[in-house]
Amino acid sequence: MNNFELKNPTKIIFGKDTIKQLETEIPKNAKVLLLYGGGSIKKNGIYDQVKKALANVEVVEFGGIPANPEYATLMEALHVIKEESITFLLAVGGGSVIDGTKFLSAAAVFEGETPWDILTNNIKTEKGMPFGTVLTLPATGSEMNSGAVITRRETKEKLAMGGPGLFPVFSILDPQVIASIPQRQLQNGLMDSFTHVLEQYMTYPVQGLLQDRFAESILQTIIEVAPKVLKDPTDYDAASNFMWSCTMALNGLIQKGVPGDWAVHAMGHELTALFGIDHARTLAIITPSHYKYNFEAKKEKLAQYGERVWKIKGGSKEDRAYEAIEKTVAFFHKLGIDTKLSDYTDDYEGTAEEIEKRFTDRGWLGLGEHQNLSPDKVKEIVKMAY
Amino acid sequence: MNNFELKNPTKIIFGKDTIKQLETEIPKNAKVLLLYGGGSIKKNGIYDQVKKALANVEVVEFGGIPANPEYATLMEALHVIKEESITFLLAVGGGSVIDGTKFLSAAAVFEGETPWDILTNNIKTEKGMPFGTVLTLPATGSEMNSGAVITRRETKEKLAMGGPGLFPVFSILDPQVIASIPQRQLQNGLMDSFTHVLEQYMTYPVQGLLQDRFAESILQTIIEVAPKVLKDPTDYDAASNFMWSCTMALNGLIQKGVPGDWAVHAMGHELTALFGIDHARTLAIITPSHYKYNFEAKKEKLAQYGERVWKIKGGSKEDRAYEAIEKTVAFFHKLGIDTKLSDYTDDYEGTAEEIEKRFTDRGWLGLGEHQNLSPDKVKEIVKMAY
Repeated sequence: MNNFELKNPTKIIFGKDTIKQLETEIPKNAKVLLLYGGGSIKKNGIYDQVKKALANVEVVEFGGIPANPEYATLMEALHVIKEESITFLLAVGGGSVIDGTKFLSAAAVFEGETPWDILTNNIKTEKGMPFGTVLTLPATGSEMNSGAVITRRETKEKLAMGGPGLFPVFSILDPQVIASIPQRQLQNGLMDSFTHVLEQYMTYPVQGLLQDRFAESILQTIIEVAPKVLKDPTDYDAASNFMWSCTMALNGLIQKGVPGDWAVHAMGHELTALFGIDHARTLAIITPSHYKYNFEAKKEKLAQYGERVWKIKGGSKEDRAYEAIEKTVAFFHKLGIDTKLSDYTDDYEGTAEEIEKRFTDRGWLGLGEHQNLSPDKVKEIVKMAY
Repeated sequence: MNNFELKNPTKIIFGKDTIKQLETEIPKNAKVLLLYGGGSIKKNGIYDQVKKALANVEVVEFGGIPANPEYATLMEALHVIKEESITFLLAVGGGSVIDGTKFLSAAAVFEGETPWDILTNNIKTEKGMPFGTVLTLPATGSEMNSGAVITRRETKEKLAMGGPGLFPVFSILDPQVIASIPQRQLQNGLMDSFTHVLEQYMTYPVQGLLQDRFAESILQTIIEVAPKVLKDPTDYDAASNFMWSCTMALNGLIQKGVPGDWAVHAMGHELTALFGIDHARTLAIITPSHYKYNFEAKKEKLAQYGERVWKIKGGSKEDRAYEAIEKTVAFFHKLGIDTKLSDYTDDYEGTAEEIEKRFTDRGWLGLGEHQNLSPDKVKEIVKMAY
């Protein structure tokens, strides 16, 4: 097991009818900026629940934060924060709204010239403006971690940021919100959280026995509840396990003491940038060919995953490892998610070379848990995913 | 899944050679009270490592905190805290030293007449004197939770306390400390952590699918590493998984959203009080008869545990549930721990009636996850454990 540090101060309030607890969690005398996305919360009743719970504090609203939270939009929100002397931020939404709010938490106290420097200069925020979240879309785990990804269309950049000061003060997770999430978003959330676990697990063994079993626990739970969530999102038992699995998949715990891969995400981001494919679906495209290409390096963990999660028996270790990849692809298909680039676009020729060039230009010379996936290897993996 | 809240702000610093990080974790200008137990830390080198890391801060020492931390001793330490204007507490030890330090953290800021009221009046400490820990004995999980148990010999009381202000600011976990722990303490630590998980798991199903799997993960890990830890406590891979399992077994995570039992602990405490049997060993005495007596109420979870943890196949659900109890007893024996009261004392006649009377006198009318174990049922369980 590798050495590690773990500190996660976010207060989770989980369960039925918990949104009303906002009333006691927001600091007294706070001036709140309520941030949300495209307005679905006004249709599903969440907005009304939030406003009711905030009846006794001063609230300014800022809606319209887009998926892949956009710098220009966030700069408008930052202007409101300064103009209105906001003291507390409340994100009501999914990963995009929460990530955008983390940027604002950092930017509100940033003393440099231009807040974009937080991203380009990789500035870790030690203490941001305090914020809470009401999660409306389980997927990214942003509600219990301190990281965010921000997009700047103007310069075609998508950069990560974070720091110990960017954990939410609290996050309210009411699984009943899942009932009104469209099928496509549910599929994406299941895929996203499943891949978050794989990125922290499918590497090489370091005797992180408990971490491995925790990761397998989340994978097994997602596999168990996925068909139920998709069939009937009002199934509270399934919804609550789905929601809690998404949070636990990326709140830091299972990454402690073990190596991480994250190459699937790096390659997937490019497919979103080039073709506008949903983030979660790009992961389904890349994962199988990534595991096949890196089979030798990953076969120990692939076999363990196959044995424990998919109950594969018999054959050689290699057989079980390979069958585990096949089972994974079959699971993605069962989620209703296609796993080949050609399922999404006819215009895929040259994509592998384009991504190779982008990674070379950026100096990304070694992805993956061994930092040995050079751009020419990335090209091969993407080609296998056509 | 039941509704729950989770907030655990303790910073964990885990791994090889981490004790030296004390230097950066102790607040600058702090005046530190260094608390420890019987002095084993002076023999195994931990004391020297701690003192070296504290070279730049003012340190006062208080050794001699006994197992089952004793109120009278702690009151002497409290006197030192006031006399010396201490600002930060550092526990170097196992659960007893850490629990004692939690009491001092609360007592140092307590404004009432006598600090014992914190325990008798069940006062939740919202903000105590800040403290950190260096864990020398994995078992109780006290290094990452906010609870403590304090003993007062004078009045023969053993009471629990806690509150959100009693999480350690940081805890340093270096698995290398395990190398110098005596065999008996290792057995106890394995037993204690295993039972902590069982108390939060062996109840009835509430569709806490992920919680169940996390609990099973810890049980499986302890079962896997136990023989290695006992055979060779310098085996770092085994030691690190043992240590992390103990912490995760009682840091709150697996209890969230599911019922808890804790009747085994309640009954076990009486056996310690009556016969001086090690706490961990009392758990091994009570567990089998508790599960047999409450078989109908617990058989769903017993069967699931048998299937998933012990890989029991075939037979009826009842068969698998019963075999799971047998496997558990065999595991305790494999740890080198006896499971009958008569293994520890010849003077066991009348014990069940004595404990029944104690529970009746205290008004403990309903133990267990259904709060339905009345003192006469407790008597039957204890009798089965002779």
